[in-house]
Amino acid sequence: MSTNTNIPAIIGKKRDGGQLTEQEIQTFVDAVVSKTAQDAQIGAWLMAVYLKGMTSEEAVHLTRSMMKSGTVLSWPPEWNGLVVDKHSTGGVGDKVSLVLAPALAACGMKVPMISGRGLGHTGGTLDKLEAIPGFSVEMTPKRMHEVLESIGCCIVGQTGELVPADKVLYAIRDVTATVENPQLITGSIISKKAAEGISTLVLDVKTGNGAFMEDREEAEELARLMVAVGEGLGIKTAGLVSTMDSPLGRAVGHAVEVAEAVHCLQGKGPHDLLDLVVKTGGVTLQLAGKASSYEAGNTMIRNVISDGSALAKFRDMVVAQGSSDDVATRLCDVNGDVWKVLTPSAYKTTLKCQKSGVIQDIQAMPCAKAAQCLGAGRTRAGEAIDLAVGLYFTKCLGDSVTEDTPWVTVHHTTPEVPEAAMTLLKEALVIVPKLTSPIADSRVLNIIGRKSLCTTNH
Amino acid sequence: MSTNTNIPAIIGKKRDGGQLTEQEIQTFVDAVVSKTAQDAQIGAWLMAVYLKGMTSEEAVHLTRSMMKSGTVLSWPPEWNGLVVDKHSTGGVGDKVSLVLAPALAACGMKVPMISGRGLGHTGGTLDKLEAIPGFSVEMTPKRMHEVLESIGCCIVGQTGELVPADKVLYAIRDVTATVENPQLITGSIISKKAAEGISTLVLDVKTGNGAFMEDREEAEELARLMVAVGEGLGIKTAGLVSTMDSPLGRAVGHAVEVAEAVHCLQGKGPHDLLDLVVKTGGVTLQLAGKASSYEAGNTMIRNVISDGSALAKFRDMVVAQGSSDDVATRLCDVNGDVWKVLTPSAYKTTLKCQKSGVIQDIQAMPCAKAAQCLGAGRTRAGEAIDLAVGLYFTKCLGDSVTEDTPWVTVHHTTPEVPEAAMTLLKEALVIVPKLTSPIADSRVLNIIGRKSLCTTNH
Repeated sequence: MSTNTNIPAIIGKKRDGGQLTEQEIQTFVDAVVSKTAQDAQIGAWLMAVYLKGMTSEEAVHLTRSMMKSGTVLSWPPEWNGLVVDKHSTGGVGDKVSLVLAPALAACGMKVPMISGRGLGHTGGTLDKLEAIPGFSVEMTPKRMHEVLESIGCCIVGQTGELVPADKVLYAIRDVTATVENPQLITGSIISKKAAEGISTLVLDVKTGNGAFMEDREEAEELARLMVAVGEGLGIKTAGLVSTMDSPLGRAVGHAVEVAEAVHCLQGKGPHDLLDLVVKTGGVTLQLAGKASSYEAGNTMIRNVISDGSALAKFRDMVVAQGSSDDVATRLCDVNGDVWKVLTPSAYKTTLKCQKSGVIQDIQAMPCAKAAQCLGAGRTRAGEAIDLAVGLYFTKCLGDSVTEDTPWVTVHHTTPEVPEAAMTLLKEALVIVPKLTSPIADSRVLNIIGRKSLCTTNH
Repeated sequence: MSTNTNIPAIIGKKRDGGQLTEQEIQTFVDAVVSKTAQDAQIGAWLMAVYLKGMTSEEAVHLTRSMMKSGTVLSWPPEWNGLVVDKHSTGGVGDKVSLVLAPALAACGMKVPMISGRGLGHTGGTLDKLEAIPGFSVEMTPKRMHEVLESIGCCIVGQTGELVPADKVLYAIRDVTATVENPQLITGSIISKKAAEGISTLVLDVKTGNGAFMEDREEAEELARLMVAVGEGLGIKTAGLVSTMDSPLGRAVGHAVEVAEAVHCLQGKGPHDLLDLVVKTGGVTLQLAGKASSYEAGNTMIRNVISDGSALAKFRDMVVAQGSSDDVATRLCDVNGDVWKVLTPSAYKTTLKCQKSGVIQDIQAMPCAKAAQCLGAGRTRAGEAIDLAVGLYFTKCLGDSVTEDTPWVTVHHTTPEVPEAAMTLLKEALVIVPKLTSPIADSRVLNIIGRKSLCTTNH
């Protein structure tokens, strides 16, 4: 392996708490991609960044260098201002993308959504979509262009040419205890979104026991950094900070979440999911200049859901991504049964509350771990997962229950629900004689970004 | 490459400033040697150690684990307490080992000295010895045993089986800006010395403009740490802190330093070199229990030099390490000329003072760099160097000079002294009208270690 003589000096500067210049960061990222930086040097640099931090200026340079390390998608001039996307830092039961992408398309936006697979306790949008028979997450940039042209949205996997620097850096962060750093997280997320050639980006930064960041202040700080970096790259960016203490909606898994997303698009989704879709979409539309205000944006999203146009976009997207017309049509049929299309799990077991009172909490993290136990999660990238298993909560926060009330249906593949999953689910359910604190009406705590957004009532 | 699942947790603990347990450090070092730790993980761990530090307890564990990563030499029980060594952190013109090893052998000690090659601005003992025709620094442990049995000392290169962990760690430190950390330096130095199976160790920690550590307090701290770690491994250890502001003795190079070492063994060496040899040796003999006091130890070293027995040991060592009897005898002949045996440089140029006054300083660092310019130094490990080139100072600190007084003889291979070397040497020489501070009588600033040593007058 050849060596780049500047690399030790760049590592040393960051080690001593110095601020790296645009040129130094560019040199480092170039060396990462060309493999002239040794893995040991990348590991040492990442640890120095983790421990000494980066200014938001450095984070902008890092993100831009990473973005430029591969292909950056470009779109026809007539789409200027219309190409948008959202990103979530990952939660439990988070199927917002499945509803929001077609909703935004129905509002006339172009959504070239490049998404990821699940790892650890959070599910992946791509895995969920693969529960739809025939659905493919692979797509060339040329085909993406065609689908955006005709439909307006697609949800696809990372292509080999986009942001190769992130592949190398992430693989090394993963084994060197340097994942959880705001600047590195931001570089990884925003570079990939920026490489989609978007002009507007909305970030959903989760906080709570089921999020990567439990602490609200840390989440807000990350949101502010990501907004600054997005704007630094010339992308209109906002960051929602939303709670992830209990699973979003009622379903956790893959097929079960697709079913819930379809129901949401049919106007029958759970309140918290719809609320988050509406607000994320509303911010996006205002930022992009499509809506005159955040509230007007919210209304536009509600409208395309209630008039069925978002559902129609979803149906078309499913067909464009490889499913048969028949599958897509039956999946979306408001009078049909999604379980005639999606593969249900072999077994379903209903669990009861075992105690009377009010449901104060259904904790996201043990639910996520329970789903993992059932086979829904990966512990290593590339591992096979079971798309049919999952959880469906028949009761939700604030509901009064008795000890015999069923509260969750477990979708499982083995004849018995695994013991560990049972224990986790018991742990997740918090029943109290009387609510000690009110159930929040919305998950959105704050919206960070372009001025006016912050002044509205979320 | 297989992965060791504990490694990220160990990196993370150090990243967060935690104190690693003996078991964790052992696991990490084992993984370094077995290559189950990835280079990126080693780089990240080294940076975490660099930035978060290690307690001396951790440094003991690190050093012991490194020592145990390969062969540890062992010696016959009748040598108990006799096997000793010294180590210098590296200076300019430092040929102490060449004089001290045979002097200690002449006092009845066993000195299995494993030494290194020069890198950067400091010369290496092994390179210097190779200026003696026929001298070989390669030796098997079996042959070392024979030579220690019959003569009492040898100065050899690292063997493949000793401390393999250091090879990996050092190569990575070298490219990741993690060389200059006290615990890592200590681990590297003490593990290699401990693997020699010694019972007494004296460290010469240099401080000043020609040393790795300019700051005296830092040098004393390193000395204290190395003493603590040596003692932690059950080795009687002391640390001399000595100045390295001007070159040690009058010669800088390879052949020129061998010549000076021989002269010192013949009782004709420069004062500062002899003083440092005597004091380092005196500490060693007292620590080992061979001398009743530090002063008695000093006297023993002076005696073996003045009675010629140290010179005889040197002669025998040279023969034992491959030179012919004729070479060794003529090299050591008090009535002979070492330059009949050593290869002189093709050219010699004498430089004049260009100014009247008193020599206040001959700065070590520009002298070292000048010698590098002449071809005496390496910028990369493995690079060929010129053993004939070097510097010989005909004037020393405190001497009164006029502008025509010759002060240094440059031994060079190219017909002209390189311009850069001329500039550096001019920079090195500091002539003042009158001394502003007295010239120190001894380079030894402090001796850290077993109690009584510190109370004597150094």
